[in-house]
Amino acid sequence: MKTAYEVARTHEAAGRRSWQGRLFTVIFEADTPAGKKFDVSLIAVITVSILAVMLESVETVQIRYGSALRNMEWIITGFFAVEYAMRLSCVERPAAYARSFFGVIDLLAILPSFLSLVFPGSQSLLVIRGLRLLRVMRIFKLAGFLGQANLLLSALTASRRKIMVFLGTVLLLDLIAGSAMYMLEGSEGGFTSIPRSVYWAIVTMTTVGYGDITPVTIPGQMLAAVVMLLGYAILAVPTGIVTAEIVEQIRPSEITTRGCMHCLSEGHAWDARFCRHCGEALASPQRSGEEPEEGAEPAL
Amino acid sequence: MKTAYEVARTHEAAGRRSWQGRLFTVIFEADTPAGKKFDVSLIAVITVSILAVMLESVETVQIRYGSALRNMEWIITGFFAVEYAMRLSCVERPAAYARSFFGVIDLLAILPSFLSLVFPGSQSLLVIRGLRLLRVMRIFKLAGFLGQANLLLSALTASRRKIMVFLGTVLLLDLIAGSAMYMLEGSEGGFTSIPRSVYWAIVTMTTVGYGDITPVTIPGQMLAAVVMLLGYAILAVPTGIVTAEIVEQIRPSEITTRGCMHCLSEGHAWDARFCRHCGEALASPQRSGEEPEEGAEPAL
Amino acid sequence: MKTAYEVARTHEAAGRRSWQGRLFTVIFEADTPAGKKFDVSLIAVITVSILAVMLESVETVQIRYGSALRNMEWIITGFFAVEYAMRLSCVERPAAYARSFFGVIDLLAILPSFLSLVFPGSQSLLVIRGLRLLRVMRIFKLAGFLGQANLLLSALTASRRKIMVFLGTVLLLDLIAGSAMYMLEGSEGGFTSIPRSVYWAIVTMTTVGYGDITPVTIPGQMLAAVVMLLGYAILAVPTGIVTAEIVEQIRPSEITTRGCMHCLSEGHAWDARFCRHCGEALASPQRSGEEPEEGAEPAL
Amino acid sequence: MKTAYEVARTHEAAGRRSWQGRLFTVIFEADTPAGKKFDVSLIAVITVSILAVMLESVETVQIRYGSALRNMEWIITGFFAVEYAMRLSCVERPAAYARSFFGVIDLLAILPSFLSLVFPGSQSLLVIRGLRLLRVMRIFKLAGFLGQANLLLSALTASRRKIMVFLGTVLLLDLIAGSAMYMLEGSEGGFTSIPRSVYWAIVTMTTVGYGDITPVTIPGQMLAAVVMLLGYAILAVPTGIVTAEIVEQIRPSEITTRGCMHCLSEGHAWDARFCRHCGEALASPQRSGEEPEEGAEPAL
Repeated sequence: MKTAYEVARTHEAAGRRSWQGRLFTVIFEADTPAGKKFDVSLIAVITVSILAVMLESVETVQIRYGSALRNMEWIITGFFAVEYAMRLSCVERPAAYARSFFGVIDLLAILPSFLSLVFPGSQSLLVIRGLRLLRVMRIFKLAGFLGQANLLLSALTASRRKIMVFLGTVLLLDLIAGSAMYMLEGSEGGFTSIPRSVYWAIVTMTTVGYGDITPVTIPGQMLAAVVMLLGYAILAVPTGIVTAEIVEQIRPSEITTRGCMHCLSEGHAWDARFCRHCGEALASPQRSGEEPEEGAEPAL
Repeated sequence: MKTAYEVARTHEAAGRRSWQGRLFTVIFEADTPAGKKFDVSLIAVITVSILAVMLESVETVQIRYGSALRNMEWIITGFFAVEYAMRLSCVERPAAYARSFFGVIDLLAILPSFLSLVFPGSQSLLVIRGLRLLRVMRIFKLAGFLGQANLLLSALTASRRKIMVFLGTVLLLDLIAGSAMYMLEGSEGGFTSIPRSVYWAIVTMTTVGYGDITPVTIPGQMLAAVVMLLGYAILAVPTGIVTAEIVEQIRPSEITTRGCMHCLSEGHAWDARFCRHCGEALASPQRSGEEPEEGAEPAL
Repeated sequence: MKTAYEVARTHEAAGRRSWQGRLFTVIFEADTPAGKKFDVSLIAVITVSILAVMLESVETVQIRYGSALRNMEWIITGFFAVEYAMRLSCVERPAAYARSFFGVIDLLAILPSFLSLVFPGSQSLLVIRGLRLLRVMRIFKLAGFLGQANLLLSALTASRRKIMVFLGTVLLLDLIAGSAMYMLEGSEGGFTSIPRSVYWAIVTMTTVGYGDITPVTIPGQMLAAVVMLLGYAILAVPTGIVTAEIVEQIRPSEITTRGCMHCLSEGHAWDARFCRHCGEALASPQRSGEEPEEGAEPAL
Repeated sequence: MKTAYEVARTHEAAGRRSWQGRLFTVIFEADTPAGKKFDVSLIAVITVSILAVMLESVETVQIRYGSALRNMEWIITGFFAVEYAMRLSCVERPAAYARSFFGVIDLLAILPSFLSLVFPGSQSLLVIRGLRLLRVMRIFKLAGFLGQANLLLSALTASRRKIMVFLGTVLLLDLIAGSAMYMLEGSEGGFTSIPRSVYWAIVTMTTVGYGDITPVTIPGQMLAAVVMLLGYAILAVPTGIVTAEIVEQIRPSEITTRGCMHCLSEGHAWDARFCRHCGEALASPQRSGEEPEEGAEPAL
């Protein structure tokens, strides 16, 4: 998306009065009234499309409204196809857009319907339509949610490695616990193979606990209790990782906006007397009559 | 409630000696002994009323004590109706009270009983009575719990957007996971439609795990394991959000705005007697006769 | 326990050479080798006693070893009775000990066995024996775990009110959700009464999810999904509360040990130049050659 | 591993040109291209070996590919045996290696296959093979994950005592709750003995909730609701403990020990050029030619 967007931006700067520029403003941007209307109606169509796919899978609905839903399916597919063509036409380098992340998703949102003409039973590919919803994410910027999403995303990105180490450890523990359970329980409680026992260990350690496979012997129940308590205590780890990251992400807001009048650098501590970048004396908050904000380090 | 309360406040200021003023003090306020008694008995009646509704739904109780519970129901409805009339009579602008949040709830607490006279089977509307319990919330101020409730509420309010972004992402993930599961599992394990599979995905990702729908094929169990581990890791996000907010909410209360009259520095600790920067004596909060309440913001 | 202990302490100070003083040192204290041995053997006997009660409830064990376990039961009861008598004899004010928290537990650990002579079927009272384990807590001080337990306890105590507000809100939400579910689902999925539906709501919102009662209709499953997501998001609140408290409990360790040479007060901030209690100039950490500890606020 | 590694290091320093030194570099280290290739192929073989053990336990696979999997098993066992011999040969003190943690695991990875020759049914010992995966942990250093794993490990180690106190308390609560449930419910809902009821209490309090044992009476369901809410609230404690520790682990890395040579103040930010207290120029970390790594402790 980045690439396609930048490409388009250049285009836009070149000649905004062309029909392509105007179309681009409507389809790709959301700052004009027309652009907002387009995005909102896109969300509506995507939502309707997904609801139609979901309803079609319900047998009773399928029998009564099957053909109507299929027709709606084709109309929406047509709409998305036209939209895809328009997107291709109004960007400066269509190939760059087509290869971008959202370009691929836009194409994948159309293909399954055409595929089902060749392979009648390819209903299963309809699930790819769910990816259309990712576009809704992009439109979050309309409501100012983007900042929050970015904050969460950067917290998750920052703890990416820690979470992978954690998940790896959990999987290793589940492998050992599952194998031990296979050995202890036998097939009576449903532990018919090691993969199935490892599946049980994951179900148990994540505290999901379906109950489709449960230990029935005393040693099995004791091991299960250990796995549960382990999962209970271990659940604390990812939470701790992400919480610590979010606390870190939020904390910088406590940093001051005190600036140096000489080198214009910002963010000096409240008890600083000299600029840490150029060494010039800083204006004291007291002398300049400024009250430090609530929650900030008091001035010297 | 705000509106109604302010309206009443004005009224109260105008002439406290009238019978309306005295009634207002008893019904709307909880600072006088009579007002406290009224609130406590209101809690008791609400609790009894809810217990009656709950017991009436149990078949064995219904058969033996059905008529007695119904009579009690009508007595309590009468009590609430009189209370509602009194509330209307003692506020200065009854219309403003009737349209306020608690005014509507007070009315909804009476209506279902009368409605069941016209439509005999409208038992189902009795659930609205549960809203009466929201009044109990208001009475929490009696025990000083209001501050804690407000702290939690403001932490939740501050993270409102983050939690909405999070829940939206979880729903999107559940939609995709549920659709994929519908494709992989088929109807054997209970995945008979996409909505039902999405329901399964929500049950699994929130780690509830009823076990009414469970995967039985190997690929389905592998996908289920991924969904579980994802839910396990993702559970960390809302916790992180709220924890970070609560840490933020608690922290500022520890920072004082106590200032030194000599060097104008701020943020002195509550037990400080002398400015830690210039050594001058600080104005004592004690001398002004106000004892800081435990945990509250003390006066300057 | 506090009272009894203090009473005993006084006694001990009065005349340590008496047999009562020596007995007190062994039974109530754990600082001498004899006292440690006594406490460790007490833990062993309590553990054996609890295991015996647990095993006796297993039918196959009951049939084969029932009489042996019952004999052991009586031997342990005798041991505890003698111990109780000794405790009473060696404290200065036996009545104060008997009324103290651990005095009552010590008595409750003996009574059920004697009660079962009068009422043969009073097996159910054996559960009170579980309280004997609380004495194990007291012995944690042997291993230095007491500080950690106190830290956790003070964090929980500090967030007591917040957790009560939270649990009250959760119960109210469960009441409303359960009633709504009773209305929507009917008896097919197991929602036969409002109390049962509220039980379901608690099972669901706490993410336990037994699966003994599950919604089978579409509207019921939609409401269930909302309850689950709510529980998932709300789970963050108690975690946030306790985490924030523990962070607070740990943080004070960052406070300095800088002392005022004039009034001997401690805990002055690293950038303080004057004692906040007496106004005297503080010795500067730099001048006195002291390096601030890692993690502390740098000196001025 | 520490011991064996240090022993080997000494050896290596003594004469790196010997064939033993070259072999050591390949097998024990991962800094040379050959060493990296060896470690990566070791991970591959371990993964294949575990997959083979898992597949062999699936009945349908066992019937069709049993002999092929058994042959592969023996080939891998041979590979590990040769590897174990090579490890023994290239370290200076083989006995020290054999007694080290990874030395024992390396041996345990070979033994079960030979044992199954003597005792044909010793399939159950195959689970020990799972420990081979622990070697994967060691190779995490290839990807720089080791720092993250250490951070998590030190956070867990630091909260070891708190978590043990917490788990002990949870077990005690589960014992009491399980016994009470045994008393209240009887055998109808599956509470046939105290150990089984305690197992139920653990399943419930950890929010796993299999549903294999569920209360069916009203008092039992009320007690279960209390246990669930308790577990829900208590789940906050380990999370709080670990989160607070991780916050602590992360925080110190942000505080520098950079000092001002003029006024001896410390804790200057990494991008500071001048002392914020006296305005003197600080020694630049850049000038010393070392670029601080992202997230690492930069050199002074």
